[in-house]
Parts: sequence; structure tokens; C-alpha cells
Amino acid sequence: MARPRNILFIMADQLRWDYLSCAGHPALHTPHIDALAKRGVRFDRAFVQSPVCGPSRMSFYTGRTVNSHGATWNFVPLPVGEMTLGDYLRPSGMRVAVAGKTHVFADNEGMARVGLARESELGLSIAEGGFAPFERDDGEHPDKRTGPSLRYNQYLRAQGYDGDNPWHSWANSAEGPEGEVLSGWSLRHAHLPARVAEKHSETAWMSERAIDFIRESGARPWLLHLSYIKPHWPYIAPAPYHALYGAEALLPVVKSAAERVDPHPVYGAFMAMDAAQAFGRDEVRDHVLPAYMGLVKQIDDHVGRVIAALEEAGRLDDTVIVFTSDHGDYLGDHWMGEKELFHECSVRIPLIIVDPSAAAAATRGTVDHRLVEAIDLVPTFLDLLGQSLPTHRLEGRSLRPLLHGEATPWRACVFSELDFAFYKARLTLGLDVQQARCWMIRTERWKYIAFKAFDRAQLFDLENDPDELSDLGQSAAHAPIRAALQAMLFKRLADRRNRVTVSDADVAARTDGARSNGVIIGEW
Amino acid sequence: MARPRNILFIMADQLRWDYLSCAGHPALHTPHIDALAKRGVRFDRAFVQSPVCGPSRMSFYTGRTVNSHGATWNFVPLPVGEMTLGDYLRPSGMRVAVAGKTHVFADNEGMARVGLARESELGLSIAEGGFAPFERDDGEHPDKRTGPSLRYNQYLRAQGYDGDNPWHSWANSAEGPEGEVLSGWSLRHAHLPARVAEKHSETAWMSERAIDFIRESGARPWLLHLSYIKPHWPYIAPAPYHALYGAEALLPVVKSAAERVDPHPVYGAFMAMDAAQAFGRDEVRDHVLPAYMGLVKQIDDHVGRVIAALEEAGRLDDTVIVFTSDHGDYLGDHWMGEKELFHECSVRIPLIIVDPSAAAAATRGTVDHRLVEAIDLVPTFLDLLGQSLPTHRLEGRSLRPLLHGEATPWRACVFSELDFAFYKARLTLGLDVQQARCWMIRTERWKYIAFKAFDRAQLFDLENDPDELSDLGQSAAHAPIRAALQAMLFKRLADRRNRVTVSDADVAARTDGARSNGVIIGEW
Repeated sequence: MARPRNILFIMADQLRWDYLSCAGHPALHTPHIDALAKRGVRFDRAFVQSPVCGPSRMSFYTGRTVNSHGATWNFVPLPVGEMTLGDYLRPSGMRVAVAGKTHVFADNEGMARVGLARESELGLSIAEGGFAPFERDDGEHPDKRTGPSLRYNQYLRAQGYDGDNPWHSWANSAEGPEGEVLSGWSLRHAHLPARVAEKHSETAWMSERAIDFIRESGARPWLLHLSYIKPHWPYIAPAPYHALYGAEALLPVVKSAAERVDPHPVYGAFMAMDAAQAFGRDEVRDHVLPAYMGLVKQIDDHVGRVIAALEEAGRLDDTVIVFTSDHGDYLGDHWMGEKELFHECSVRIPLIIVDPSAAAAATRGTVDHRLVEAIDLVPTFLDLLGQSLPTHRLEGRSLRPLLHGEATPWRACVFSELDFAFYKARLTLGLDVQQARCWMIRTERWKYIAFKAFDRAQLFDLENDPDELSDLGQSAAHAPIRAALQAMLFKRLADRRNRVTVSDADVAARTDGARSNGVIIGEW
Repeated sequence: MARPRNILFIMADQLRWDYLSCAGHPALHTPHIDALAKRGVRFDRAFVQSPVCGPSRMSFYTGRTVNSHGATWNFVPLPVGEMTLGDYLRPSGMRVAVAGKTHVFADNEGMARVGLARESELGLSIAEGGFAPFERDDGEHPDKRTGPSLRYNQYLRAQGYDGDNPWHSWANSAEGPEGEVLSGWSLRHAHLPARVAEKHSETAWMSERAIDFIRESGARPWLLHLSYIKPHWPYIAPAPYHALYGAEALLPVVKSAAERVDPHPVYGAFMAMDAAQAFGRDEVRDHVLPAYMGLVKQIDDHVGRVIAALEEAGRLDDTVIVFTSDHGDYLGDHWMGEKELFHECSVRIPLIIVDPSAAAAATRGTVDHRLVEAIDLVPTFLDLLGQSLPTHRLEGRSLRPLLHGEATPWRACVFSELDFAFYKARLTLGLDVQQARCWMIRTERWKYIAFKAFDRAQLFDLENDPDELSDLGQSAAHAPIRAALQAMLFKRLADRRNRVTVSDADVAARTDGARSNGVIIGEW
């Protein structure tokens, strides 16, 4: 057929770009995801707009940078006026839904201001960031936040798991030798199997729900955001995935003692936080990594199941398939845990796009090394579906020409940013809430990071220092490079699409139009 | 009393900062506005966020830069999610209304998206930018846009003026010797009196409506935006104001032949447009200026009437009074007509603030030379009324400390910007719609203008060249100054307040708060 009709938009959470066998991991075999890469294009240099779940996802869903959409961190609501994939796709009759995590928080204040009740159909859609909550579940359900009404808890209880919050007591816990419940929140338990059976784990359940969605949607066009909660922490995998990898399977840690000598103050403050302190110890990293890898392997197996179900439903030839992640994970590299900062393992993501159409035949199985960004997905989806692009709002570029092997000029840099106001690091540094911002520009060769509160920048030469171990931010010899990258950063900020209420075509049509309205300016 | 309760927010349209006697105009006497300056503080270096009606006003009303609010030009709707003065003041019971012009256009698409009907009370408020349309009238009513239902036309007909659009045929027209109607759109008629009687002119009528508002509001707190349509073109004044000023009253034109030699391309393209071509001819300028000055003089007289009515209503002691303008007018200076670009006569405005409270006693009658911006008014209003400031949205600073004579560190530069996509100049330059942007940084000494589509910048040394006749944008000797100003510009763009859905105080309270929610990160 001429054009795809559906989009299966699969996202893992906290999956590094390099923990897939198609991306070169020597021990972690991911044949099902690799099969997608063989059917489509693997974008080898793909980056998120912010290496934190919430802001990164809002950029995936709006096609706009964090600078523009304003949901700068987790739990910061997406402003009610920001348009999402649902706004663009639903009018044409597509079903737009999520199975799994979105991290969208409703802008209750903004909704109340415009009289929008969350209970209404419209209110629910906007409160959910445009995704019908077919099976919305953001994961991470500590007892303090979650009770029996969580749908996954209801599901688990129906399978015979007891307790108020079986997410915690079964899916996120292991058992000690005396049958005691050991919390998956503690990294020391990462080598143990989760108490939940694999077939009832979050990854399995969400895959099942995705298959339900595909089956029940039939021929009606849809976008399904299958958004896995894993391999995000808590790092605990169900058997047999907890024990697939031994010490020989681990990638060597990437760090050097020099990194801790006079680090940039912000990097230094992050290295002092709990996650970094834990993962900075090699024995912790080596203990946790097999669980992380097991969770990735489990996702790969379930991606295989979902794709098989898609084929069985007859939708393989009219469905665009995307596999990506919302950011990476330091896993001890650079003396860091978690994500947030801009080293490649944090800000770079896997991105595979399968376009089933004949126009994409020439690129199948290829690797594209061009610099792409999370904000490119919304325009790519609209373009592949044949919709016009609202270029007055979207800040990314359609990847369709790349998928179709068409020559096109491409961008020279990618952009990412961080609001670290919510972190202990801000307190350590004594910064006001509004001062805790930084921005990254990465070109083929260079990575430059500027900070609102510090004149000192960071600079890495990715050609001569691919592991990013040597910060050239204070190298006098590199001042001209920093200046050039700062100029690129200015251009990115200045390129913000703020005129969201009038399209570019409308502006063009109305240019120099005063006289046609009877307004006569400057006539003697 | 301790605190003011009301705000009378008077705005003229297209009134230059220097066309008031308190600002030094030698022939144009404005005693009533001068009296406000004697009762309050005159800010001598006040600037708009964009020298165009619509975007400038949206910054006055939102407290946010054009970069942030996105209504980049006239007729570009303010996005439905942008909060305005009405949102901040109405919850405390204040009546917030306009008599005159706002240039707010409803974001119909955005309103429809959230299910907000314009007919509802909430819809009307948001459609009107937060101002109840007590007497909304944006002026400029050519026959093609306006008919009998315009309220001002209804008013004129009730006074005996005939025709479908007496705004045009009476208020905006003069009469020839044979009784023929001569359009005020043509500059050649600027020396003639308008056909309308002064007491029925727009300025008089809007003043009357403001007085109605003050009287009918009684003791209920209010903000009234009395927003005069004049001295904006069409330049035609009712008798006797059409003929108060002769050639001896005119300020000399500010321009030099050097300005037309290799001008910056954008400046050059604007100089080629109709308004500049007309006002670039001294005979046109000299013919039109008396009408412009008469319209200002008329406003001054009516400001006197309104203030007298305020006093009569007993509200002089609890009302903050502001007098300002939305931008200036080139009036032939720099070979230009209209506004749009960043020379002082265009981007600098009169700003007088009268705070009736005792705390402001020490500053009464003083002139403050610090750099202030239009976005400072919203925080000033909230601060004077004793409200907390939503610093996560507002991008300006409260002027209250300046009004109260308190020592406070102050900003080193002001910022303005322009989207010139709608102008013929963009076509002349062959630019795409998204490329037509530029930004100004002005310090005490320097003015720097950067352009999205051109590496070439503009630079003026206001100390040695106060008339801005010598563009140093290509002077090699000034490269370091340009670099420093470019760095300031970056900081202004980077200071955008985008996290509009979570307050700074909330962020502070939630910093490093994961563990308190049961989320345990990085614990062995």
C-alpha cells in the first residue's frame, strides 16, 4: 500500500543506546529488536531533548523542545495549551492510546482556568497528554504513593498475589532464604529474582495489553504508544532474566580518576548524590548490571511477541514501528548513576524506525549516522501518514526523507537541556530555583554544555576522546571552538517556535496585506 | 491608607517617549500628564518588548516577553494558556476592564481545543485577554472591516453623524472646500480638522467611558485599562487640535545621509516601505507632525478630565495611576515612518507611575533613569497590591522598590524583539517566514541588534552617538563589545520562564524529595 496507517511507538525507559546487540553490545543479544533494525533504519546518533523521563517524553509527544513546552522536569505538568500527538492524529479518525508510561501530569490549574473538567472526554484526553489511557501505568509504585486500586495491582491480585500493593511486595521484591521479603529498591537485592512470575511482570503484562489493543482495534487506524517501564530502576528482574549474565558479559566501566579532579561544579555536585555514590563503586555496578541487562533482554523477547501479534493481525504491512527510549543510564560510567547529565550514555538513545512502505525499500537494514532528535518523531509520524506539518509549532524535522533515501540537507548539531532545580545538587551548589539550567550542543565532533549559573562550560572532543573523559571547558586553546558552539546554542534557543496560533502559510498569505483590509499606511 | 486598591492603567498608542513636556519637548505642553509625573515617578528609560502594537501589548498584559507569550505580531492570537492581568487580579475581587484598545485576538483554535465557548463568561474573558470589554475598541475601522454595529459608530449616529461607518466618514475624514469628504488615511489631509466635533472624537468618547467606569465602580476595587487609540495613525485631529502647532514647534528631524549608505539589509528594506518613503520626505513629515502633536495634546487634556473625575469620586488616594504607550513613532527620523525597528523613537516609551501610598513619598516628582521594561508592569501591579509574584511565569521585575526609594540591584540591559514576517520587507529580503526575527539589547551605553537571518548585527554607541546615526555593526574595533552584548542577548533568551505550571516555591519545597515519596534511589 502507498502509506502506512498505524504507528506502533515502542519506548523503553532508561535504555542506553548501546545496550542492544544491533548497536554493538557483545553479550546482550536482542534479536527481536535487531530484526526491526533489519526491516527499517537504525539511527545511530539519536538524542533526547532532556535526559530525564518527564521532559524528554513531553518533547517526544509534542515535537517541541523543553524550552518551548515547559514541562522541565518529572511531575511538572504539560501546560494545557501544548498540543500533542493526539491533537494531530485524532481528527483524522486515528485511535491514539498508551499502554504503559507517559509521565504526563495534568495541568490542573490550567485546565480549571479554561473550565475544562478532567471527567469530560476532552478533559481526560488533555489531562493524559493526548493518549487515551488504554493501560496507563507509569511504574514506580512505592506504598506511600500507591494502593490496591492501581490496575496492575488489581491484575496481580486476580492472579493470586496478595497484599495492598503487590507491585511492591511481589513485582518489586525478592525473597530471602527464610522467605523474608527483600525490597527491590535496595541495589543489594538486584541479583535475586523478583517474586513475581515472569508472565505476570510489568513488561509481560504491558505487552499483553498492547496485543489486546492491536487485536481489538481491527482495521481502524491507530497509534499505540507501548511504553515499557523497564529497564528503569528499581533494578530487579523476574526469573530467568535475573541470572542470564555473568561478569564476563559486562561492558567495562568508562571512567577515569581525572574526571574527579576539579570537575565542573554541576558535574561535581551530581557525582556527590546517592545514585552516583552507589554506582561509583564497581562492586555495586557489577552487582546491578546483570539485572539491568536481564530487563532489556526481557523487553526484547516481548517485543518479539508483540510484533508476532501484529503480523498475525495482518497489520505488519501498514504499520510504522518505532523502537526507542526516553534517555539512557550512567550505570557507573563517569562515576555516575541515573541519568540527567549529557554524557552519551545518558543523552543518547536507541532509535529504530520501520516504515513498511515501498518508498523505504532502499534503506531497509541500514544504519543512519546523522544527528537526530526526539522532537523529530512527531513530524516524522505526520509526514509518513501524509499530513501537513504544523511548522509554526513543531521544532523537529521529519525523518521521512532519510527513511526514503532522499537527499536532503541535514542539521549540524543536536540540542538537549536540563532543569536540575529539583535535585539535591542545586542545594549543594547554593543556586536559586531559576538558576539551575544547562544546555547541550553536540555536533559530529564536539559536545558543549553551557550553564546558566556558571561562566565555566564543559567541552568534549568526541573525535579524540570518544569516551568523554577529558573536559576541555577550561582549555584556552579551545576558546574559539567553545565560542562557535555557543553561537550554535544561541541559534537553537532563538529558533524556538513561539507563534503557535498562526501557521506559517497563514503568515505568508497575510504578508504585506494591510491595504487589502483598507488600512492605508504611508500614502500621501 | 496602607496600600492602593485600584489601578488606572492609561496607555496611548504610538506615543514617542519624548513628545511630552515633562520629557523635554519644548513646544508640546502636556500639563496634565506632567502633573502625574510630579505626583509619581517618571521612568525616563522605559522600553517595550516589541515596537509593534500587538506583541508589545501582550507583554504589558502578561508580564512576559514576546519570545514567551508567542503573540509575535498584530492579529496573532495570544495562546489560550497564557495568563494575563485579569487572571491575577480578578480572583481577589477586582473588576478588570478595558476602555479602548487592547489588540487582543482570541485564540479560537486553542479555545475550541479545550472546549471553551466564546459566549461563556470564561470564554469572553479569555478571548479578551482578561479584560472585560467595558468599551473595547481597537480603532482603525476602514469600511472593509467595520460596519454600523461598531459601538463607536452607534454612538456617533446617536449624536447625529450619518452613514454606515461614521468612524471613517466623520471621525477619520476632513472636508474639502466644496464639502467633499477627504480621507484621513491620506497624509495630505493631516492639516485639516476632522469632521467630527472634538467632544465626539475617539479620545473624548473613550475618556467619557472611563469616567463612567470609575463612577459606576464605586468602592469595588478595579483595574481600568484606559487605552487611547491615538496618536496612532490615521493622523487627523479634531478642531482645535489640528492647528495648534506651527513650523516653529516641530523638533528637527533626526537623520543623516550616511544612514542610507550600506544600511543593514533589514533596515534598508524597511526604509524602502511606503511609510518610510512618505515620512522620509521632510515636507510630508512637517505636514503631518502638527496633527500628531495635536492628538497628543488632546489626550493630555482628557487625561486631566479623567484624573479630575477620579478625584471627584474620592479615589485619588487609593488608585495607582500609570501613563505609558505601547511604542513610539519614527515620524521621519532615520528616514523611517511607523515603528517596528529599534531606534529610541520607536522602542522607547513614556512611563509615569503614581503610587498614592505613603511609602512612595520620597520619590514623588523624581525621574528614574534606570532601564525598565513593559514586562515590569504586571509584577509592579501585583506587588503594589500586596500579592505574591508568580516568578515562574513573570519575566519582568517589580518597580515597587524603585517607587518606594528602596536600594535594590537593577538590571544592566533591556530586551526587545521583532517578528517582521508580515512585512513587505521580508519579501524584499527573500526570507522565509521563520527567518524574519531580530532582537535588541540596550545597555546604558550600547544598543545591539542581532538578526536571525544575517550574521551582520547593528550596534550604536549611545554615549558618543545619542542620535543613533552611526551603525558600528561592522566596525572591527567594536567586535569585543558586540560579543559582550551577544552574550547578554543569550542570557535574556535563556532566562525565559517556561516552567509555568509549577511555582518556584513548589520546586523549592519538592527539591530532593524522592525519598519522602518512598522512591529510594541509589541505596545499596
